[in-house]
Amino acid sequence: MDLNEVGMEISEKMPFLAEYWPFIITVLVCVLAAIVLFKTALDSPSDESLPPEPDLLDELDDLEGLDDENEAPAEDEDEGPALPSDLKHVPLQFERRTPLESLTRSQEFLDLMSTRRTVRSFSSDPVSPEIIRNIIKTAGTAPSGAHTEPWTYVVVTDMEMKVKIREIVEHEERINYERRMGDQWVTDLKPLKTFWEKEYLSVAPYLILVFKQVYGFKENGRKKTHYYNEMSVAIASGILLTAIHNAGLVSLTSTPLNCGPAIRVLLGRPKNEKLTLLLPVGYPAPDATVPDLTRKPLEDILVEI
Amino acid sequence: MDLNEVGMEISEKMPFLAEYWPFIITVLVCVLAAIVLFKTALDSPSDESLPPEPDLLDELDDLEGLDDENEAPAEDEDEGPALPSDLKHVPLQFERRTPLESLTRSQEFLDLMSTRRTVRSFSSDPVSPEIIRNIIKTAGTAPSGAHTEPWTYVVVTDMEMKVKIREIVEHEERINYERRMGDQWVTDLKPLKTFWEKEYLSVAPYLILVFKQVYGFKENGRKKTHYYNEMSVAIASGILLTAIHNAGLVSLTSTPLNCGPAIRVLLGRPKNEKLTLLLPVGYPAPDATVPDLTRKPLEDILVEI
Repeated sequence: MDLNEVGMEISEKMPFLAEYWPFIITVLVCVLAAIVLFKTALDSPSDESLPPEPDLLDELDDLEGLDDENEAPAEDEDEGPALPSDLKHVPLQFERRTPLESLTRSQEFLDLMSTRRTVRSFSSDPVSPEIIRNIIKTAGTAPSGAHTEPWTYVVVTDMEMKVKIREIVEHEERINYERRMGDQWVTDLKPLKTFWEKEYLSVAPYLILVFKQVYGFKENGRKKTHYYNEMSVAIASGILLTAIHNAGLVSLTSTPLNCGPAIRVLLGRPKNEKLTLLLPVGYPAPDATVPDLTRKPLEDILVEI
Repeated sequence: MDLNEVGMEISEKMPFLAEYWPFIITVLVCVLAAIVLFKTALDSPSDESLPPEPDLLDELDDLEGLDDENEAPAEDEDEGPALPSDLKHVPLQFERRTPLESLTRSQEFLDLMSTRRTVRSFSSDPVSPEIIRNIIKTAGTAPSGAHTEPWTYVVVTDMEMKVKIREIVEHEERINYERRMGDQWVTDLKPLKTFWEKEYLSVAPYLILVFKQVYGFKENGRKKTHYYNEMSVAIASGILLTAIHNAGLVSLTSTPLNCGPAIRVLLGRPKNEKLTLLLPVGYPAPDATVPDLTRKPLEDILVEI
């Protein structure tokens, strides 16, 4: 039975359809196509014509139901709180410093932090692993959404692994600079003399790779929501950078675009962890230079009300 | 001339169209409708059935062409770099500490930061504004994407303003707790004894409101892209929290859900600034308690390769 025969049969029962049946079928097909297109657009808002997003965002694609990092968990996972519900509250241990002491300390800390610079040329001189462990422990004191502590620090000293990381980063960075980032971004980075070659990745004695855990696991194996995981990990990274500088070491805060998935697999990290920052840590090369930048004066960043 | 007449005229020139012209017009209309639907879906991926997003994300809606914080600027804005293209590079000022000194400093800093706790009961005792200014200056030493320094710190001491901020936050937080956050989130926060009432907002001597500048402006008034502004501001906030604790003060890291737009308007901040964190700062109340939390041991957060 071909379509014309169908038309004939229908026309016997519903005469008004005789003339318009191809029209009606077309409308139905088009409505269906429109619905499919609409759903596709909602599911994958990325578009070839849009600029590339950093791997931190790309990677969220492989998560189910957690595209919004603060999304409430699925209804069937509702159960007791992640922390003990009878968590005791204890008096805060606090010794008040004198106002003068506070003022002096705030000035000294400002002086210390004002000398921090992002460094791109490293010495290969070794650094005691105990110092690095203290620095990671210090980052671990950061606050986090509902005390979920959604971070993993992978510290790489193995040369073979550093070389592999460098290969991944340089491969992606070359594509980033040549194709993904756009002329303006590349132009904006030129005065800082950054480029796709990253010699420091195989020279610095330590690479610290900061992973955010987009979700965690409860004791019963179910998924645990990590509220504000991206922000928590970035705040912890601020404390990490402070600890690195305080210990007399230098670093470079880098967010390697699109390298996250490959590096995660290389390091054997699970799917709930996403690379957020990659920091080489060590001493600067003897001839290290830095761009002659100034920082905004206080009146440009502070509003008092 | 009605549609049938059009059909007749066309059929004289192109006979095959005589039978199928309503069909063809329908296809054209449907394709047009599909394109419109598709574009609409791409432009507004939000959906009533999705859980509420934090105001940081909500607010991005009122920006044009900057939904992705690392998006390259529109083609017509391409021009010279944001920093001077002849930016000089100068030798890094660096004095190497001895390994023992580094180890000792890293241990002392860990001991200091380990005593930091998030505090929810504040004393109204005053704190010198000089200390707060040093703290903000210290946060201003943070690294940022392409050195854009995309942050504004609004420090509120005016009581009337603090009360208004408290009203906005409590109004929204009540809705968050009762409707938006979902049972699991509210359950997860119960052990921490947080609730929609925020007495500390009118008690603490200082409120520090951290705004990220989603974009900035060049000298010629054009938009300047702020690469990784959210992450830069969160890293700076980690340094801010460290500076607060180092000065002997306490704070609470809060991300008031959905309060951003109202508080931004209240404080008279421009549209390119989005509220990221709200931190009360001061001394703890004499009877302040904290949840008896432990932090993850080093082996749970560090992987050495």
